[in-house]
Amino acid sequence: MSKKIRNKKYTSFPKDEQILSQVKVTVIDYSPEHIIEKELKDIRESYEYRHKNDVSWINIDGVHDEQVIKTIGLYYNLHPLLQEDITDTEQRPKVDFYEDNIFLILQMLSYDGARQAVENEQVSLVLGEGYVLSFQGDVEGDVFGGIRQQLRAKGKGKVRNSGAAYLFYLLVDTIVDNYFIVLERVAENLENLEESIIENTANEDPTRDLYDLKRQLNIVRKSVRPLREIVSQLIREEAKFLESDNLYLRDLYDHVVQVIDNTESYIELTASLLDLHLSIIGNKTNDVMKILTIFSTIFMPLTFIVGVYGMNFKYMPELESRQGYFVVWVVMVVITVFTYLFFKRKKWL
Amino acid sequence: MSKKIRNKKYTSFPKDEQILSQVKVTVIDYSPEHIIEKELKDIRESYEYRHKNDVSWINIDGVHDEQVIKTIGLYYNLHPLLQEDITDTEQRPKVDFYEDNIFLILQMLSYDGARQAVENEQVSLVLGEGYVLSFQGDVEGDVFGGIRQQLRAKGKGKVRNSGAAYLFYLLVDTIVDNYFIVLERVAENLENLEESIIENTANEDPTRDLYDLKRQLNIVRKSVRPLREIVSQLIREEAKFLESDNLYLRDLYDHVVQVIDNTESYIELTASLLDLHLSIIGNKTNDVMKILTIFSTIFMPLTFIVGVYGMNFKYMPELESRQGYFVVWVVMVVITVFTYLFFKRKKWL
Amino acid sequence: MSKKIRNKKYTSFPKDEQILSQVKVTVIDYSPEHIIEKELKDIRESYEYRHKNDVSWINIDGVHDEQVIKTIGLYYNLHPLLQEDITDTEQRPKVDFYEDNIFLILQMLSYDGARQAVENEQVSLVLGEGYVLSFQGDVEGDVFGGIRQQLRAKGKGKVRNSGAAYLFYLLVDTIVDNYFIVLERVAENLENLEESIIENTANEDPTRDLYDLKRQLNIVRKSVRPLREIVSQLIREEAKFLESDNLYLRDLYDHVVQVIDNTESYIELTASLLDLHLSIIGNKTNDVMKILTIFSTIFMPLTFIVGVYGMNFKYMPELESRQGYFVVWVVMVVITVFTYLFFKRKKWL
Amino acid sequence: MSKKIRNKKYTSFPKDEQILSQVKVTVIDYSPEHIIEKELKDIRESYEYRHKNDVSWINIDGVHDEQVIKTIGLYYNLHPLLQEDITDTEQRPKVDFYEDNIFLILQMLSYDGARQAVENEQVSLVLGEGYVLSFQGDVEGDVFGGIRQQLRAKGKGKVRNSGAAYLFYLLVDTIVDNYFIVLERVAENLENLEESIIENTANEDPTRDLYDLKRQLNIVRKSVRPLREIVSQLIREEAKFLESDNLYLRDLYDHVVQVIDNTESYIELTASLLDLHLSIIGNKTNDVMKILTIFSTIFMPLTFIVGVYGMNFKYMPELESRQGYFVVWVVMVVITVFTYLFFKRKKWL
Amino acid sequence: MSKKIRNKKYTSFPKDEQILSQVKVTVIDYSPEHIIEKELKDIRESYEYRHKNDVSWINIDGVHDEQVIKTIGLYYNLHPLLQEDITDTEQRPKVDFYEDNIFLILQMLSYDGARQAVENEQVSLVLGEGYVLSFQGDVEGDVFGGIRQQLRAKGKGKVRNSGAAYLFYLLVDTIVDNYFIVLERVAENLENLEESIIENTANEDPTRDLYDLKRQLNIVRKSVRPLREIVSQLIREEAKFLESDNLYLRDLYDHVVQVIDNTESYIELTASLLDLHLSIIGNKTNDVMKILTIFSTIFMPLTFIVGVYGMNFKYMPELESRQGYFVVWVVMVVITVFTYLFFKRKKWL
Repeated sequence: MSKKIRNKKYTSFPKDEQILSQVKVTVIDYSPEHIIEKELKDIRESYEYRHKNDVSWINIDGVHDEQVIKTIGLYYNLHPLLQEDITDTEQRPKVDFYEDNIFLILQMLSYDGARQAVENEQVSLVLGEGYVLSFQGDVEGDVFGGIRQQLRAKGKGKVRNSGAAYLFYLLVDTIVDNYFIVLERVAENLENLEESIIENTANEDPTRDLYDLKRQLNIVRKSVRPLREIVSQLIREEAKFLESDNLYLRDLYDHVVQVIDNTESYIELTASLLDLHLSIIGNKTNDVMKILTIFSTIFMPLTFIVGVYGMNFKYMPELESRQGYFVVWVVMVVITVFTYLFFKRKKWL
Repeated sequence: MSKKIRNKKYTSFPKDEQILSQVKVTVIDYSPEHIIEKELKDIRESYEYRHKNDVSWINIDGVHDEQVIKTIGLYYNLHPLLQEDITDTEQRPKVDFYEDNIFLILQMLSYDGARQAVENEQVSLVLGEGYVLSFQGDVEGDVFGGIRQQLRAKGKGKVRNSGAAYLFYLLVDTIVDNYFIVLERVAENLENLEESIIENTANEDPTRDLYDLKRQLNIVRKSVRPLREIVSQLIREEAKFLESDNLYLRDLYDHVVQVIDNTESYIELTASLLDLHLSIIGNKTNDVMKILTIFSTIFMPLTFIVGVYGMNFKYMPELESRQGYFVVWVVMVVITVFTYLFFKRKKWL
Repeated sequence: MSKKIRNKKYTSFPKDEQILSQVKVTVIDYSPEHIIEKELKDIRESYEYRHKNDVSWINIDGVHDEQVIKTIGLYYNLHPLLQEDITDTEQRPKVDFYEDNIFLILQMLSYDGARQAVENEQVSLVLGEGYVLSFQGDVEGDVFGGIRQQLRAKGKGKVRNSGAAYLFYLLVDTIVDNYFIVLERVAENLENLEESIIENTANEDPTRDLYDLKRQLNIVRKSVRPLREIVSQLIREEAKFLESDNLYLRDLYDHVVQVIDNTESYIELTASLLDLHLSIIGNKTNDVMKILTIFSTIFMPLTFIVGVYGMNFKYMPELESRQGYFVVWVVMVVITVFTYLFFKRKKWL
Repeated sequence: MSKKIRNKKYTSFPKDEQILSQVKVTVIDYSPEHIIEKELKDIRESYEYRHKNDVSWINIDGVHDEQVIKTIGLYYNLHPLLQEDITDTEQRPKVDFYEDNIFLILQMLSYDGARQAVENEQVSLVLGEGYVLSFQGDVEGDVFGGIRQQLRAKGKGKVRNSGAAYLFYLLVDTIVDNYFIVLERVAENLENLEESIIENTANEDPTRDLYDLKRQLNIVRKSVRPLREIVSQLIREEAKFLESDNLYLRDLYDHVVQVIDNTESYIELTASLLDLHLSIIGNKTNDVMKILTIFSTIFMPLTFIVGVYGMNFKYMPELESRQGYFVVWVVMVVITVFTYLFFKRKKWL
Repeated sequence: MSKKIRNKKYTSFPKDEQILSQVKVTVIDYSPEHIIEKELKDIRESYEYRHKNDVSWINIDGVHDEQVIKTIGLYYNLHPLLQEDITDTEQRPKVDFYEDNIFLILQMLSYDGARQAVENEQVSLVLGEGYVLSFQGDVEGDVFGGIRQQLRAKGKGKVRNSGAAYLFYLLVDTIVDNYFIVLERVAENLENLEESIIENTANEDPTRDLYDLKRQLNIVRKSVRPLREIVSQLIREEAKFLESDNLYLRDLYDHVVQVIDNTESYIELTASLLDLHLSIIGNKTNDVMKILTIFSTIFMPLTFIVGVYGMNFKYMPELESRQGYFVVWVVMVVITVFTYLFFKRKKWL
């Protein structure tokens, strides 16, 4: 866990540091009138976009290189503890408010159809005056394609006409909207499982799948739960960086609450499904036992009777009788009928 | 999920837009003295009712046509986010307070007797000065028939003599009252199930029905739970649009709490019934096993004994004895009696 | 549910209304010096007692007659919503504070020894200046006998020397005290059940009784739980109608908390008892299976062996041997001893 | 439950009341300089100690005699409701603050080694200016021996140099410390049970013992839980009777929280142990079934085969064959080997 | 439990007290310029470091010697109750704020790989002006090695340049970071167990291991849970001893919340795994029963049939028939085929 670099002062500019090429830094700088998209070779180039009179979105893909993070931290005045939070990719979602920026950690979820698994990647967002930084984990790809499309569209969209706070909101909102998509996929799996449990068509023990789905739902829950508090903090703090109109944040809050609600419902559903499955298993065992018991109760006495007359005693009067064989059959039929009626009355048949 | 149209400005009037005929818009405009009911061809006609010195209830059936919703939004100054909430029919119930209206989303529940299922349809209500808008999902029919009757009755009823806020309250109250009806139907099913579990007359595994009922109760709970907070917000905010007398809202609050209470009780009941069922199944399996064991324990030794004297050894002294056969019977009877007494003492018989 | 009469104004006196005789109205009017008990033919007579300088307790048995309730409502200035609450006998307990009275709904519980069931009847209490109204459901009899005795006793009792608020407190306290009595009866049943589960003397599946008791406890809980909030509201609001000394209300509060505590304990106990029962059942099934398995494991090989020598092959050398029969017995005894030792080591015997 | 004596005024001194000798009243009156211990014949004697300029601890053993309690109540100005609380020995722990005293009800727990049960006895404490009253139930003996020792020790101990509030604190603290001792005993039993479940050495069904322990833990929890709120109320109210230094009360609070924590842990442990036991039982049943099934699957076909050649048909060619008997043995061995391998692959053997 | 020494005054210096050598006291005294590490023979020596103008960290290993604790208490003005808390090593984590110091009790966790168990040792920290006291239990070794390294490093590290409050924070943070390491080890075990349950490769009942892991997680939870409240109290109280910058404490808080979150997740996981295991066991028992039932249902009728023709009746016409033997075989094959098809349709085969 967290190996902290506890240097409080971090103002001097580190020279000759190595900017690793595998960290991909892209900047989108826009105003209602213009938009520039550029992939940066050196993180230091981003600095020139910062103070312009427009909005800069600097996206950093890959957080394994502490040197890069450190350089950015230096430029954008990020506390060493924040830098640490960015590189440590198992953070709990949280928001921190600083004098000149807002720092937000989220888990971006996606559903890997092939592995049938929910995957999470940590996204750290920094909102400052006129800029948004977004740090993504080392996995390629994100869910922000739609936002880029909106930005590239000619300047009539709301996003081009709004400030950095709106972009920040959009990024968070897109991540939250994506939770719904992930939940939908999980819900589909749950429905299939439900059907196979009720129709009893499962080849394998469905408990394993239930267990899997529950783990995935727990990942979603763990990612979403802290957001409730985080977004309501954003709403309360909306003084400086966030625009005066917090309608969008309230809408975001509603969505977060709804994701949490749905996740909880699905988790409850897995519990109900397990109960259902266990009860069905219990019933089936009961049925199996009944069949075994019925067969045993009918055939054991019969086998005993024919065994009796298979004995080789010298003196067994019945064996000599001409009707003996016939009488034995009658007795056996009577016994069978009685047993049958007994089980009939017990409603086993 | 939510594809948001993020145009903040929405003042200019869209020309030539197509008012789809399948969206049914009806207006009921009333004062103590008069009442007008009319089905509108064009949503724009509703606007002329808005500013009159009486109450207008504009009901929109069908929310799939975003253009219609957009037009209404324009006339009645609904924020694009609200328009989105109206068309997205899987919203969590919520209330929003704006300067010139109150926006409320509810789930209207009904019980489909044929499918034995609870069905929900989203209703969005907007209360403004002198008007109430109600948006219903695409399913035909609603629960507001009684209110229309009251309105049509000659002007002595409270509703005709009150303002839009009272109509708004009436709509919400009717939806909440309907929850009781749905709950009653579910409760009937629960009682039947309880009886069939206790009387053990169920042909099928009752767990599936329990599972079904629990899901339905979860739908009710999900629809009702947020209402507690919503109604208490209405009570606190009752400044402007709501009348000064909040007795009715407090009564509504009591009803909401009672629905929640009842729903929780029924959900607990399903859990108790499952326990009961599982315990009964366990007991039954135990009983089945006992019968099997008793039969086996009695007949196995007997079958062994008669097997012994069915052997074909040349030299078996017992076979030659005249009393042999008789003695074997005595021995077998004694064994049976002892086994019987053994199980008697064990209270299995 | 609630068919509300939404007439806000309810001042004009309804003439010629029919006072149904089956509703029984009794008034007890007392001061330290005098006491009058009278059964009223017409609810309107009660009005004359209201303004006297003493305490009037008007008890109405039977709330099915809406006309009577309406008349009383008119006299005592009860809001139509309250009238509705009184006649709708499935209300959740609640308290409402009005300018000139306090309105309280409670569930009065009693234990029906014959049916072994907890029964509830709604009681609505209205405390005004100098009078208490009590509305009881249609079931005859109540738990207020003791209070009537105290009232009839010569004027040294506290109740005769106190105002209407103390009578009001006494009524509520008596209802709450009665919960203890009901709980005691349920607890007795629980203890019997506990004993029969532990001693294993139950003839039938005790789960049904557990299920019954749990339902009864849930009724108690549902009746008592809202009282906690209600009584603490009474304590806070104790300004006008309630006397300055709220010691009695605090004592009442303690009792309510204790009833809730005890109810929760008993409900937990039913869960523990169910666990105990299921575990005992599991153990028993295990024991049954062991007996079956031991018998089968011993007799199956023996039966096989004697079967072998029951075959009719022409050439079976053992059959010719003189010692054959004896050797087979030895082998079978050895097998049995080994099997016995095997199960002995497994601690099954 | 509570038969209340509702006389508000209780100033006049009751003459000729009978002071029952079986109620044992002892007084310890001390200051840094002196200490007097005395058993009182008449409760009225205690009054003379009250107003002295030192601390009086009056301990009353036995609360069944309402007359004694009434007399004390009169002297020490206890409200009739408090008197009732003292005699009703099933009270929930609570604290009440009055103008001239603090009234505290606690449950004193002890562990009866012989009966292996937790026992509780109600203790009511009254702290006034310069005196502490302690009322104990009718069971002999208490846990205050240590405090008496400290008092009797020469005057350097803190208790002799402090006021009544410190004595009051000491009494409560001693009772709470005793909870730890009781919990330790319960924990020992739990550990033994845990071992016997894991080692599977239990002769009897351990569920009964688990059930017993859980009930005892519930008694502890019920006694301790309200104390959290009570002690924090004492801390907040520490104005008049309690000394200015509330370090001791905060320490007490920590202890109470720790007892609650431990109790909850142990209760959770009983649940885990039950799960463990049930799972072990399930596994055992599974093992038993496997043995039965293996034996049956091996011997049933064999018994069938030997049965075939035990038939007495005139024409059965195999019987005539010389190798017949040998071939049958070979076939049976082959079948057995295959069955063995089948179960081997299934990992049953 | 707690045998309290209730001497309030503790100013006079106790002479001739015995400083036990087995208690190991080390002092690290540092400023940006210098660092001194020394093992003290006599606890009294530490006093000279206290008032210097730098930071002193006095670490006491072993708290069993009350005399030593008492001496330290005297020097550093620790209340007797605190001294007691230090020696009583089963305290719940807590923080107390005094005028001249902050007192903090924590549980330091470590994972004993050999015993596969989580172990806890109580650490008491005292933060005063310019000094930190740390008391550790009697077990040797701690987790503070890293901090000592940082201190010994040349004076550029943050810790050397900061005050006692930062050292205090570092100690707590290190203990909390260690929880993550312990949790990781437990998580590894959980994953192994999960695999062995799913792959069904467990030789033994995995429930015991699950039970063990749950107990360990409960220890972690018990140690961590109170920290949430403790750290947020530190954040609120950060006036005097703690530096103005509470970023570090907020970071600590985030970590504590994350440990709690993770612990709760793992505990939930154990519950899910138990469910999974029980369901798998249930399925297996069901499978075993099916095999038994199939075999019994097939062979019981066959054995009966061959038994019939093993009877020795004089007159059995079938036996005389030449086709008798052949017909019997046909009948038996037909029965077997039908039984097979029956089970096929039931999906048992």
